[in-house]
Amino acid sequence: MENDAEFTAPEAFAEVGGTYRDLGWAKIDTGRPARTGSAEAVYAAGKTPEQVVGALRALRAAHPGRVAVATRCDEACLTAVREAFGADVLVEAGVCAIGAFPAPEVGPLAVVCAGTSDLPVAREAEIIARANGIDARLVADVGVAGLHRLLDKVADLREAACVIVVAGMDGALPSVVAGLVSAPVVAVPTSVGYGAAFGGLAPLLTMLNSCSPGVVVVNIDNGFGAAMAAARILGVKAER
Amino acid sequence: MENDAEFTAPEAFAEVGGTYRDLGWAKIDTGRPARTGSAEAVYAAGKTPEQVVGALRALRAAHPGRVAVATRCDEACLTAVREAFGADVLVEAGVCAIGAFPAPEVGPLAVVCAGTSDLPVAREAEIIARANGIDARLVADVGVAGLHRLLDKVADLREAACVIVVAGMDGALPSVVAGLVSAPVVAVPTSVGYGAAFGGLAPLLTMLNSCSPGVVVVNIDNGFGAAMAAARILGVKAER
Amino acid sequence: MENDAEFTAPEAFAEVGGTYRDLGWAKIDTGRPARTGSAEAVYAAGKTPEQVVGALRALRAAHPGRVAVATRCDEACLTAVREAFGADVLVEAGVCAIGAFPAPEVGPLAVVCAGTSDLPVAREAEIIARANGIDARLVADVGVAGLHRLLDKVADLREAACVIVVAGMDGALPSVVAGLVSAPVVAVPTSVGYGAAFGGLAPLLTMLNSCSPGVVVVNIDNGFGAAMAAARILGVKAER
Amino acid sequence: MENDAEFTAPEAFAEVGGTYRDLGWAKIDTGRPARTGSAEAVYAAGKTPEQVVGALRALRAAHPGRVAVATRCDEACLTAVREAFGADVLVEAGVCAIGAFPAPEVGPLAVVCAGTSDLPVAREAEIIARANGIDARLVADVGVAGLHRLLDKVADLREAACVIVVAGMDGALPSVVAGLVSAPVVAVPTSVGYGAAFGGLAPLLTMLNSCSPGVVVVNIDNGFGAAMAAARILGVKAER
Amino acid sequence: MENDAEFTAPEAFAEVGGTYRDLGWAKIDTGRPARTGSAEAVYAAGKTPEQVVGALRALRAAHPGRVAVATRCDEACLTAVREAFGADVLVEAGVCAIGAFPAPEVGPLAVVCAGTSDLPVAREAEIIARANGIDARLVADVGVAGLHRLLDKVADLREAACVIVVAGMDGALPSVVAGLVSAPVVAVPTSVGYGAAFGGLAPLLTMLNSCSPGVVVVNIDNGFGAAMAAARILGVKAER
Amino acid sequence: MENDAEFTAPEAFAEVGGTYRDLGWAKIDTGRPARTGSAEAVYAAGKTPEQVVGALRALRAAHPGRVAVATRCDEACLTAVREAFGADVLVEAGVCAIGAFPAPEVGPLAVVCAGTSDLPVAREAEIIARANGIDARLVADVGVAGLHRLLDKVADLREAACVIVVAGMDGALPSVVAGLVSAPVVAVPTSVGYGAAFGGLAPLLTMLNSCSPGVVVVNIDNGFGAAMAAARILGVKAER
Amino acid sequence: MENDAEFTAPEAFAEVGGTYRDLGWAKIDTGRPARTGSAEAVYAAGKTPEQVVGALRALRAAHPGRVAVATRCDEACLTAVREAFGADVLVEAGVCAIGAFPAPEVGPLAVVCAGTSDLPVAREAEIIARANGIDARLVADVGVAGLHRLLDKVADLREAACVIVVAGMDGALPSVVAGLVSAPVVAVPTSVGYGAAFGGLAPLLTMLNSCSPGVVVVNIDNGFGAAMAAARILGVKAER
Amino acid sequence: MENDAEFTAPEAFAEVGGTYRDLGWAKIDTGRPARTGSAEAVYAAGKTPEQVVGALRALRAAHPGRVAVATRCDEACLTAVREAFGADVLVEAGVCAIGAFPAPEVGPLAVVCAGTSDLPVAREAEIIARANGIDARLVADVGVAGLHRLLDKVADLREAACVIVVAGMDGALPSVVAGLVSAPVVAVPTSVGYGAAFGGLAPLLTMLNSCSPGVVVVNIDNGFGAAMAAARILGVKAER
Repeated sequence: MENDAEFTAPEAFAEVGGTYRDLGWAKIDTGRPARTGSAEAVYAAGKTPEQVVGALRALRAAHPGRVAVATRCDEACLTAVREAFGADVLVEAGVCAIGAFPAPEVGPLAVVCAGTSDLPVAREAEIIARANGIDARLVADVGVAGLHRLLDKVADLREAACVIVVAGMDGALPSVVAGLVSAPVVAVPTSVGYGAAFGGLAPLLTMLNSCSPGVVVVNIDNGFGAAMAAARILGVKAER
Repeated sequence: MENDAEFTAPEAFAEVGGTYRDLGWAKIDTGRPARTGSAEAVYAAGKTPEQVVGALRALRAAHPGRVAVATRCDEACLTAVREAFGADVLVEAGVCAIGAFPAPEVGPLAVVCAGTSDLPVAREAEIIARANGIDARLVADVGVAGLHRLLDKVADLREAACVIVVAGMDGALPSVVAGLVSAPVVAVPTSVGYGAAFGGLAPLLTMLNSCSPGVVVVNIDNGFGAAMAAARILGVKAER
Repeated sequence: MENDAEFTAPEAFAEVGGTYRDLGWAKIDTGRPARTGSAEAVYAAGKTPEQVVGALRALRAAHPGRVAVATRCDEACLTAVREAFGADVLVEAGVCAIGAFPAPEVGPLAVVCAGTSDLPVAREAEIIARANGIDARLVADVGVAGLHRLLDKVADLREAACVIVVAGMDGALPSVVAGLVSAPVVAVPTSVGYGAAFGGLAPLLTMLNSCSPGVVVVNIDNGFGAAMAAARILGVKAER
Repeated sequence: MENDAEFTAPEAFAEVGGTYRDLGWAKIDTGRPARTGSAEAVYAAGKTPEQVVGALRALRAAHPGRVAVATRCDEACLTAVREAFGADVLVEAGVCAIGAFPAPEVGPLAVVCAGTSDLPVAREAEIIARANGIDARLVADVGVAGLHRLLDKVADLREAACVIVVAGMDGALPSVVAGLVSAPVVAVPTSVGYGAAFGGLAPLLTMLNSCSPGVVVVNIDNGFGAAMAAARILGVKAER
Repeated sequence: MENDAEFTAPEAFAEVGGTYRDLGWAKIDTGRPARTGSAEAVYAAGKTPEQVVGALRALRAAHPGRVAVATRCDEACLTAVREAFGADVLVEAGVCAIGAFPAPEVGPLAVVCAGTSDLPVAREAEIIARANGIDARLVADVGVAGLHRLLDKVADLREAACVIVVAGMDGALPSVVAGLVSAPVVAVPTSVGYGAAFGGLAPLLTMLNSCSPGVVVVNIDNGFGAAMAAARILGVKAER
Repeated sequence: MENDAEFTAPEAFAEVGGTYRDLGWAKIDTGRPARTGSAEAVYAAGKTPEQVVGALRALRAAHPGRVAVATRCDEACLTAVREAFGADVLVEAGVCAIGAFPAPEVGPLAVVCAGTSDLPVAREAEIIARANGIDARLVADVGVAGLHRLLDKVADLREAACVIVVAGMDGALPSVVAGLVSAPVVAVPTSVGYGAAFGGLAPLLTMLNSCSPGVVVVNIDNGFGAAMAAARILGVKAER
Repeated sequence: MENDAEFTAPEAFAEVGGTYRDLGWAKIDTGRPARTGSAEAVYAAGKTPEQVVGALRALRAAHPGRVAVATRCDEACLTAVREAFGADVLVEAGVCAIGAFPAPEVGPLAVVCAGTSDLPVAREAEIIARANGIDARLVADVGVAGLHRLLDKVADLREAACVIVVAGMDGALPSVVAGLVSAPVVAVPTSVGYGAAFGGLAPLLTMLNSCSPGVVVVNIDNGFGAAMAAARILGVKAER
Repeated sequence: MENDAEFTAPEAFAEVGGTYRDLGWAKIDTGRPARTGSAEAVYAAGKTPEQVVGALRALRAAHPGRVAVATRCDEACLTAVREAFGADVLVEAGVCAIGAFPAPEVGPLAVVCAGTSDLPVAREAEIIARANGIDARLVADVGVAGLHRLLDKVADLREAACVIVVAGMDGALPSVVAGLVSAPVVAVPTSVGYGAAFGGLAPLLTMLNSCSPGVVVVNIDNGFGAAMAAARILGVKAER
């Protein structure tokens, strides 16, 4: 079984996208589209408004043809972004997106949510998906307590090339959806619910334990991550 | 708002069933049927086989017309019980039940389980229910990954006066069932599942967070407790 | 054991209540009373005041003879509801209820709480129960640290057809109550208590581990869920 | 925003695969390939050897052209399966697979593992993938403590249409891999590690919190689930 | 071993202190001093200022010779108490105490704290102890990082009839103190500390696992409970 | 407030009991009785039988007038101890105790347990207490599900100078007992119970959150620790 | 193996630094530099501004040649410190440092952080290190999602005598760094991240389970503790 | 602040130790000594005896002058190793070490443990340290319950260039030691203790929250990791 040769590590990054731009307090990973298909996004939590604006500027400069996005923006941050980039900014669900959205190139992606309280997370996923050229379609409020609402949408779901399912509380919806479609199902737990939801732990565990084979899970309230997974699944292209 | 009187506590127990039998190492609560409708059962875990047999004997003596049950029996305990009580013992799913089962008096109770691996817990519930005079009916393997199996049984479920739903893994089944029936739904999480089920914590949290209003929950793997809840709900009578 | 037939899923919902009303951002489950006995309620947390008002309007339109309720309302939401529906709104304990309360049809339901700090959750349960036609009666501040207060009420508790027990801290009260009555006992843990109550985890675990057989449990602070369980147990009727 | 129509639930399942076979103690979901692309598998934990053999028989009968698989088999179960199905059984890593493996139709799928102790979980994923017609390729022992081993395989990883990354302990490998490829990355935490790995909780949380956007996660030690997710992603076809 | 008699529960409370005063929303346990040695105290968290004032009034009326106390008071509550009871109120560390403090009757009790940040909890214990007639003496800032500070006070500690030890962070102080004295050691974990203190969980577990035999523990930040334990230990008398 | 002097740590231990005996692999704390009133005990878990026997020998040599005890002994350890010390060994509940038990000097101590499954922990407490000269009296099986059993023993409990309460499952018993007596109540959670007892976590949290003021808590299943706390409370003397 | 002598504890502290200054509410450990190499610092959380200023004054008086520092200062505290000590105060990242910083004596210490959101914790570490005479150098934003940024700094890292690595989310960076250098690696988890980071628990567990041997970990967000560990490692001297 | 250049990743590994040996199922990281100072060790848990022997063989071949070690070996594994390598194997505490131990080159390292039950973990640390050329000295059974035992060893501890402190239960020892020495203190929690130690979680949290600045922590029972940290701290050299 041994082949017994000794190897030396290759110059792996030169060909795969090994560039970055150094701002001192940040190193913008400009090689990321070449390596992973999508550009870096700014996670605004824990950053100053100046840092968020500065990072968005660097992203706009590096990738003029892409939408630059920041997630988890608070009010001070949103104000600073609007001042810096003007009317050209979409703001919703804590996301700000700068630049013209591309025409949909891949999809369709169904973004399904269990209840109205889960809508902000679903919208985060939908916006990020559209910014990456995905034909995203929202299906709202089809929780399992009234199953006929979901069954009424089965045909739509089965047309989708990928399905994101957003749910809080019991987090049961992804299991049901994954039993009805053959497309990949990306489950997003939300922090919606009474005390024993423990900030989203309950639906997170539900989804990880789905009895429907092949459900995959991202972090609590992480609509962004679900959209990025969909971008990988749908084969969003690096060139733009 | 004050009525300002001073009260002295009443002799509460004399009329409600305040008797017990003292074995020294145990005090058999012989007043329990009068107070709560059902006789005490023996929780065998942590007890010696001698203690289990002794407690069952005391229960048989106190309530000759009832089935005496012990739950969570291991092999040594089951052997001791069989030796002590002979052929008149039903043994399954860690339960031993001594005495003739009564004809069903209340119900029907549907005992639904999500998967075949949940069957032992469902059987514990079914046996305890029958020992208490409940018309219990098992509906096996109708997990939400193949929803049509459950939908095929909706008419049966809607006929039940109470439904026990047993599920491990994602624990999603009670939410779906409770959206389809108006009867009480008692959810039992099981310890069945991969690592992040954490011994049943995952379905326990799912069920506590059910998006279907009115689902109630008992302890992990506690088929006994679910049956006792059903006995309360269905109004099992004290006299026997 | 095999019966070997192949089945096709039935049109399950047509007969059981398969209607809904589509608001785009929400799908009001108008078939829920027919299926489960009670109408949908609005969980206000995570929703905008406009969404709460919109959902309540749709519920009022669909079920003119029922009380429309929203739970977990914050101040902004309560203000919006009062503006939209005027004097005809009961507001307490984060609940708003719109429409005339029905005369009690079933019961009595005892709503017992361990301490004065648990009153808001007990009141949520009581209001929701009354909105569903249940004869609900509050028994306040009978915690086990002064057992005679509870024993003084045993006769009242034993008259109840169902008992909801609300407790924080040690959550010991449901075990004691369930040892004294034969009616179903629905336990509600609250988030009241010092640090190691961990937001209600302590009484939740206490209640799930009750040594009194047949105690059932709902989510932390979930007075609403306890009332809905009582509605199922007491057989609240769908027609209205 | 309202469209205000009332809907009745459709006969959703007739066209999407709504058949099952009733064994009494189990309901084999024979419609699953039509609905989800892959056949049901047997989760052996908590089942008797007779139940596992019975379920495998039913699957072989329903889908003669597919490999029937059971996971989490213990020794007693493996023995029973071998006796029932003879030489035609592949047995490894707790999996038994019955029937001729199909020629690879989709892929390639890279199954990467961090350490040799993670190999059983990686093998479970690999076998299940191959049973579903996926061209799966194992890349072993490329943990981040010696990063050059991974960098030496970057070209292979970038050729894969999907990557499964299996890791215990710190679970850091998926973040690193996802920064180097644009394909979907399915992360599988394992229960390998010292005490504070807490049975796989540590790498599970690591992977859910990956700083590389688009990593998705399945349950601890759940190689099966990762392979089924890959089957959805790679578009394994229902017909066979 | 059986003695085989059947018993009926006694009128237990008449002789031990079975009185209460019913305010409707509260039942003041006026029999508590007779039963347990100390009067009821008001836990203000979750109560309205009116409820806190009302309960304090009832306690003052029932036990004119005792100090009436409320703990966990916020600003609104403290203001209401001061308005209702005037200058005769001691207010500190969230406690308000109404009535003249008794001369010390038992003790001495050492209240030791590890750091200055633990002082509010230590003060809560000290005030409650003094209100119950205990000679309480505070020893501040003797954490184990500078052990000589504690060793310098060993003689004082060994004179105490009971020692309360308050500590956050690592919670190591009770183990060290209990190795130096023969008096009872009541350990109080506080919520002081960096992230992995998890709101006091870390010192709570430390104290429960003390390698010094005989350390006992109360809830996180529960200076009140520690003082009440000391009252039991020091034999505070019921008459007053 | 400053007194501003600089201190140098004293020779604290010379007078308080600062001796030990060095076995190389262990340092027997022979000064412990002088410092804390009770001799060191051997915690057998994780030690070899040889180490347990060696430590017991050293304790016997250092304190000939005291009972030498080891707790948490497994079978191999018990055999080795019996071989080493002969007939003069009491063995029960994992404890072995060597030497003649002293006549009771202090007490009485009531050791109360909720159920028969909690008996081994209660017996550990009782034996250790007796070895320390405490008049310990066991009250078995008085759980709160049948409250009259406990109320029948109130007079006995009120005579005790200290009460140890042992309970698993809901752990509710200490709260009830502490509402009925003025003596110190030391609560011991046990690992008895269904899944969501989480190895004793449930009763541990219950007891820490007792609504009866002054309950103190020791580690799960730690009968030894409860007895040592009682020894401190009851003032067991150092001289012997 | 026994040497059998009996020892009496020595006057351990006189020679190692056993002085303190008693402020009543605090005991400033003035002997700490002699014992541990670094002076005490003020943990401001839970202290009043007056207490923080008082403790800083005492530290300045005791150690005029050292920088006096307080960490975790809120706005009120920072204001009080600035008023008390004037322009001579460095304020950043919740730290205030009073006195002239010493010239670097030991190092270099690399302080590496994974993302810009981790900068405040990294800055806390850097400031404390510099206050202790360490040549600290910040390397920002080299998270593993874009590995080439880190690889570009390997030479710098390998020059460092000690490396502090600060990371939130997946906490993967320390494992990667420790595979590239032979210097000690002190890992600091931060509370940065989506829901399932659970306030820093996720990266904490990651780091404790590092697959790179020899990584050591401090508390969540504890830049101070990491710097103090570096001071021990780099041999910061007591004399100053 | 921007420097704005674009970088390409360097051939980082060629110079720092980028070699490995491919066994197919494992990739032995032969460049590790050059990069990190110490050779790879075999973590035996989860590996077959054949895999452990194979990996040890490869390590011996690659580094003939070093001791090859495997940790966490069970009986089957130890037998296989002894058969493969003969008398030249040291076996203790689950470790097997092959090759002549080097003369001590750096140190001294004090390995301190709190109790005899912690000895196996301390021995793992000691053996690994000696295998890496460290002068390691064991100080056993100096837990804080009898502080004079530790104080008697202060001079020894203060001579050490690094201190490893191993403790279970309350894990208090590292805080006390770190207050007495200026050397780095590496704390190792063990899984020794009663129920609420939760497998080592309790001492782990204690150590992470140490009130003595600069304590660093490794995984539960991870004596190996502590020794490797000491090797980094003490500057174990790569050449050998």
